[in-house]
Amino acid sequence: MLEANIIEPGSLVLIFLDNRRQYLVQIKEDLVFSTDLGNIKLSEVIGNRFGYVGKTHLGKPFYCLMPSTADLMFKVKRKTTIVYPKDLGYLLLETAIGPGSSVIEIGTGSGALTLVLARFVAPDGVVYSYERRQDFIENAKENVRRAGFINNVRFFCQDVAIDGVLQKDVDAVFVDVPEPWDVIEKARFGLKSGRHIVSWSPNVEQVKRTVEALKNNNFTRIKICEITERELLVRTQGVRPKERGITHTAYLIRASLINP
Amino acid sequence: MLEANIIEPGSLVLIFLDNRRQYLVQIKEDLVFSTDLGNIKLSEVIGNRFGYVGKTHLGKPFYCLMPSTADLMFKVKRKTTIVYPKDLGYLLLETAIGPGSSVIEIGTGSGALTLVLARFVAPDGVVYSYERRQDFIENAKENVRRAGFINNVRFFCQDVAIDGVLQKDVDAVFVDVPEPWDVIEKARFGLKSGRHIVSWSPNVEQVKRTVEALKNNNFTRIKICEITERELLVRTQGVRPKERGITHTAYLIRASLINP
Amino acid sequence: MLEANIIEPGSLVLIFLDNRRQYLVQIKEDLVFSTDLGNIKLSEVIGNRFGYVGKTHLGKPFYCLMPSTADLMFKVKRKTTIVYPKDLGYLLLETAIGPGSSVIEIGTGSGALTLVLARFVAPDGVVYSYERRQDFIENAKENVRRAGFINNVRFFCQDVAIDGVLQKDVDAVFVDVPEPWDVIEKARFGLKSGRHIVSWSPNVEQVKRTVEALKNNNFTRIKICEITERELLVRTQGVRPKERGITHTAYLIRASLINP
Amino acid sequence: MLEANIIEPGSLVLIFLDNRRQYLVQIKEDLVFSTDLGNIKLSEVIGNRFGYVGKTHLGKPFYCLMPSTADLMFKVKRKTTIVYPKDLGYLLLETAIGPGSSVIEIGTGSGALTLVLARFVAPDGVVYSYERRQDFIENAKENVRRAGFINNVRFFCQDVAIDGVLQKDVDAVFVDVPEPWDVIEKARFGLKSGRHIVSWSPNVEQVKRTVEALKNNNFTRIKICEITERELLVRTQGVRPKERGITHTAYLIRASLINP
Repeated sequence: MLEANIIEPGSLVLIFLDNRRQYLVQIKEDLVFSTDLGNIKLSEVIGNRFGYVGKTHLGKPFYCLMPSTADLMFKVKRKTTIVYPKDLGYLLLETAIGPGSSVIEIGTGSGALTLVLARFVAPDGVVYSYERRQDFIENAKENVRRAGFINNVRFFCQDVAIDGVLQKDVDAVFVDVPEPWDVIEKARFGLKSGRHIVSWSPNVEQVKRTVEALKNNNFTRIKICEITERELLVRTQGVRPKERGITHTAYLIRASLINP
Repeated sequence: MLEANIIEPGSLVLIFLDNRRQYLVQIKEDLVFSTDLGNIKLSEVIGNRFGYVGKTHLGKPFYCLMPSTADLMFKVKRKTTIVYPKDLGYLLLETAIGPGSSVIEIGTGSGALTLVLARFVAPDGVVYSYERRQDFIENAKENVRRAGFINNVRFFCQDVAIDGVLQKDVDAVFVDVPEPWDVIEKARFGLKSGRHIVSWSPNVEQVKRTVEALKNNNFTRIKICEITERELLVRTQGVRPKERGITHTAYLIRASLINP
Repeated sequence: MLEANIIEPGSLVLIFLDNRRQYLVQIKEDLVFSTDLGNIKLSEVIGNRFGYVGKTHLGKPFYCLMPSTADLMFKVKRKTTIVYPKDLGYLLLETAIGPGSSVIEIGTGSGALTLVLARFVAPDGVVYSYERRQDFIENAKENVRRAGFINNVRFFCQDVAIDGVLQKDVDAVFVDVPEPWDVIEKARFGLKSGRHIVSWSPNVEQVKRTVEALKNNNFTRIKICEITERELLVRTQGVRPKERGITHTAYLIRASLINP
Repeated sequence: MLEANIIEPGSLVLIFLDNRRQYLVQIKEDLVFSTDLGNIKLSEVIGNRFGYVGKTHLGKPFYCLMPSTADLMFKVKRKTTIVYPKDLGYLLLETAIGPGSSVIEIGTGSGALTLVLARFVAPDGVVYSYERRQDFIENAKENVRRAGFINNVRFFCQDVAIDGVLQKDVDAVFVDVPEPWDVIEKARFGLKSGRHIVSWSPNVEQVKRTVEALKNNNFTRIKICEITERELLVRTQGVRPKERGITHTAYLIRASLINP
């Protein structure tokens, strides 16, 4: 299946020059991609294998890589803040989903989470993604389509706090809204018993209210944590952690639904 | 498909009493499961839905939950230290794998990683898992089988540092051995170009040698980081982080293979 | 002044065998100090200089060191939890105190903080230490006396929340009680204007109430933070952070008093 | 002693407008201090007590506070990176120094550390500060003088790695140079036995070489750690840690000198 590794028109490629210059690009025959280290003719890239090493017109090397799942997340067109891979990777494993699962997502936002869920429930599973704002859905849809996972997502422009969810017995619920406590009860009726809900919020007060709502809605085994990522710089002049960086994103919540 | 939610003989259930008492149990009709808070007749559980709430013979409530992926990892029979969900969740998203992918794992160990990879490449993907010690493979095989993912794994009792790998063009390589630098060159020949290798090690010196080996073997975009998890206790008497816990597991490495 | 470096009867010595075996001992001529690595005759130590290297009767080496300020803190006889050096060192620098300063401490507890403050305001400054429980004061007095700083402390068995403080115009106030908000107003009348109050609490709710009380009492420039310490193990087999440890002690608060 | 609390010409005042606008100002009668929130006539401030609340010519309030020790450190005129209060507070308590102590500092740098040591050994102690570059000494001298601690410091323009130190039997040694291992042996001969040396370095390799040099020079009880500070934002809209910040400054080393 070596052919599957050939870059073609339409392929999604991570063009990497250095840590500050990495771009998720959909290949088009007649496009020239510009960076401050020089231009890249995308026609040159076509027909080569992923891993291709080229040079910009200024002679700087660039690399054509297969985007990782984290790359796909980070490179969405953003209309909202997105969940971070360090947080989502953790939460993914705190549920029981995998290929074939059905998942409800409350709060589509930019679709970064949506596309990851879609990737991991494919080929036969479905992500049911709820969002109040139609413009967010349009943007998210574009992001998910570009990443190649549109067939595994159904979008709903609906306020779950008011109108609830349409599904029953899904395998997990992911909640990414500012007021999670407002959707817990509705979410509960979509979730298969014994399964897991996850939610995340930046503020302590949000966590407290969400936890209370979970307790009032037959959820147990509630766990809250915070995940921190710190880069380690490994260089010839010495190894040390990075000096500045992100110090907080969100508190993560996981709970399990029991029978009434 | 509500039937799929019924606990049956052979079902894998997380029996949860409290944070210190959570057990991964394979249901057998005639088994009585003992805890210090009382005994549980597993026959009582059969025929109920996941999420079932029962009582031990001492009157303590217990909950029958669907094990999360993290539960499956933590509850393997261990012959070695295992990778933590906080680390594996992150690394999983740093590769491009999903359902249908092929993956090489170097260092089967207890099989905790193996079963997670198998879950996420199912139904059609394959994990090729290499391990030098046959006794580790036997134990890991048992762990993977119990978790239900044995059909997506091939085990090889082989020293990759000496004999290399048998596959070509897999979608990712996961390295969990004490001397990753010894297997990088061999691993490279199994990996599809443009794809990702991940590795992790507790010590700084290991990281340095691994990074050097990666650089010498056509890998680029090398990123090293550390992921920390801290639990937040949300209780009526007050919210605060947990006072003691795990402060280090491993440094995580991710790199991308380019064409020679 | 080399003579000052001689260990004499009454000297306070840190007897160090290894990281798990370090003891703060007051030297007495006829005492034999017992450890699980053997006995130490203290008479043998007398007349030697600090830094003395001896052997237990089982042949294990021990070292007679000058206790650091952190050693003095950690080795008090505890009746309560104590503030950690990582936290106190930070807070100390967040005030303007030094030799000659006057300080109010609200919540003597075990006296670990008291003795550090006394050390740093000596020779002419005074620590006014308030505590509701006479038994705590007795214990703290003993701890401070043993450390050698008793002349710089005045103890008051008094509930500051009810009866306030007796001093005016001190240079800093240190608050270590479970309900700091109850003493902020009284503390304010003891503090010189333009000076600093510090307080610490384990729970978020305590922090919120304290901050509110500070705002209502003419304090400004309120800063809250958390200080984390992680040990790095540097060994021939490799360098890595310690795997388990303390992950939370308290949130630290600092504020400055302005004129009404 | 209320008079001591009056702001006079020459007083060092922390003028605080908000977290981004805090200035360490030496009061001069005819100076107008300019900020982007308006001008402050310093003549207006003179004769008031610390804690004074004024308004800029644009009507914004400002506060005249007594600078904390951390303020004095942060506001030096910098020629080099400085040690952070979170690190220095910790290290200070890891030694046995206090009022009256003698201390050697190797690496004067900008004098931020020098002035803190001088404050805490006053009124009778001395800081012996070594620096290779005369221009650094001039700058540091100015910083220490402005902070009011010049009488407790002696500066030496001397390379300790080559020429050693002139003192014997000091109570602690503080090392802040890029290559600590080069000065350990010389420093040892200045330190009273049983006492403590502290050093800090950003890179792991530096730590390893320093630890080795300490072991080769009769130091024991070597402890290495990292101190992290994270601000907590307490606001009406919610409590959460700050989202971005400093993630690494230095590894801290402490060791105790034993007799040969």
